[in-house]
Amino acid sequence: MIPEIGARTWVVPGGHVPFPNHGPEPEFTGFDQLCVLNATDRDAELDLDIYYEDADPVGPYRILVGARRIRHVRVNDLIDPAAVRLDRPYGCVLRSPVPVVVQFLRQDTRLPGVVALTGTMAHPA
Amino acid sequence: MIPEIGARTWVVPGGHVPFPNHGPEPEFTGFDQLCVLNATDRDAELDLDIYYEDADPVGPYRILVGARRIRHVRVNDLIDPAAVRLDRPYGCVLRSPVPVVVQFLRQDTRLPGVVALTGTMAHPA
Amino acid sequence: MIPEIGARTWVVPGGHVPFPNHGPEPEFTGFDQLCVLNATDRDAELDLDIYYEDADPVGPYRILVGARRIRHVRVNDLIDPAAVRLDRPYGCVLRSPVPVVVQFLRQDTRLPGVVALTGTMAHPA
Amino acid sequence: MIPEIGARTWVVPGGHVPFPNHGPEPEFTGFDQLCVLNATDRDAELDLDIYYEDADPVGPYRILVGARRIRHVRVNDLIDPAAVRLDRPYGCVLRSPVPVVVQFLRQDTRLPGVVALTGTMAHPA
Repeated sequence: MIPEIGARTWVVPGGHVPFPNHGPEPEFTGFDQLCVLNATDRDAELDLDIYYEDADPVGPYRILVGARRIRHVRVNDLIDPAAVRLDRPYGCVLRSPVPVVVQFLRQDTRLPGVVALTGTMAHPA
Repeated sequence: MIPEIGARTWVVPGGHVPFPNHGPEPEFTGFDQLCVLNATDRDAELDLDIYYEDADPVGPYRILVGARRIRHVRVNDLIDPAAVRLDRPYGCVLRSPVPVVVQFLRQDTRLPGVVALTGTMAHPA
Repeated sequence: MIPEIGARTWVVPGGHVPFPNHGPEPEFTGFDQLCVLNATDRDAELDLDIYYEDADPVGPYRILVGARRIRHVRVNDLIDPAAVRLDRPYGCVLRSPVPVVVQFLRQDTRLPGVVALTGTMAHPA
Repeated sequence: MIPEIGARTWVVPGGHVPFPNHGPEPEFTGFDQLCVLNATDRDAELDLDIYYEDADPVGPYRILVGARRIRHVRVNDLIDPAAVRLDRPYGCVLRSPVPVVVQFLRQDTRLPGVVALTGTMAHPA
């Protein structure tokens, strides 16, 4: 019997997909990424809302994470209900029906021949 | 009905705006950034105090974050009540009348053709 | 009498060992690393489970951390019960019989002459 | 009346001062850094213990942080009771008589013309 691990709401205020990019796709494409771990025995459909500086929030985006699985989602790949624009500040709130853990990662390849990385655990709210 | 998300006080001890910079402004300017997400239905006026190694704290700086909005503020753009000096160690305490979430990000472009990034969720106090 | 420090379960959702690498081994090999601090008076044998996007979790991997010792483990060095494949998304859950603290670090040397670093404290669950 | 901010014990498991370095000192010297913010009205003398993989902990190192001040300490500058060896894995536990907040930062300049940064909030224990 494994105890439940994590929280049901996670927040990342500092989103900003780097653009433009240099280097071969997809491994050197610039991205913001949400990494989710679902240690429970239940498949989970998460709801993601994107917040902006100058517009109402957009969402929910749906992110499926299977039971006892992880999922790494590039924010720049999200298109439904609306593409997340590149090079624009955003934040996000992720809600899950089961406890999960969420980490944020950014890869910046705006300069030729340079990779910059940054990341942090998301904030469990 | 969305529950309140976050905390009212956030702390970043490790501030230091990189200087000098290389590359076009503003996208390659070196910066320290505070990223705030306000998921509540109320506009918020946050108070920021800057702490130094060798002088009394300076503040409050005022940071407005609308209801259901984010705001990414470059510390090097803060000038009232006093500019935050570049290349000088500082820390900060951010206070909000409503729960928010705060992330810290640094971009370092002191070397030509190089971008270095680092960041972390701020500490909710 | 030192109080116990840390938690017994730690989670990292965003694993991905960079590959290929450039530069001399082992100092410039790309890696994901788990850094454990055991401040207690008891040697500890930790269990690590690796979660994937498209397969069942694999584990437990055993990680020994002596009393009043740290241990920095490169995920790419783990081979029993099965090597962790490079360039593949994963997450992990670390369980300890005593309270410990866990930090995650990545070194990316996929581009010649470039080092990228990122990391975060793991999530205590 | 400002409420107390932070915790009295902080942990960083993933220390490792990069070596060798390239670029002018001190701004491009590689370092691990502990950044402390003391928002209280009391000067504080913190005790730092350094943990190793293969030896007993060494300490306490003393770190003074004034009332309503920050302090950024490079671990490679600590010499009493014993210098922290470069290029050697370590972890640390910081204890304070008053609540403080602690952030960890690394600058890696082992490659000529490259700066890599990483950091995280320390773990409050």
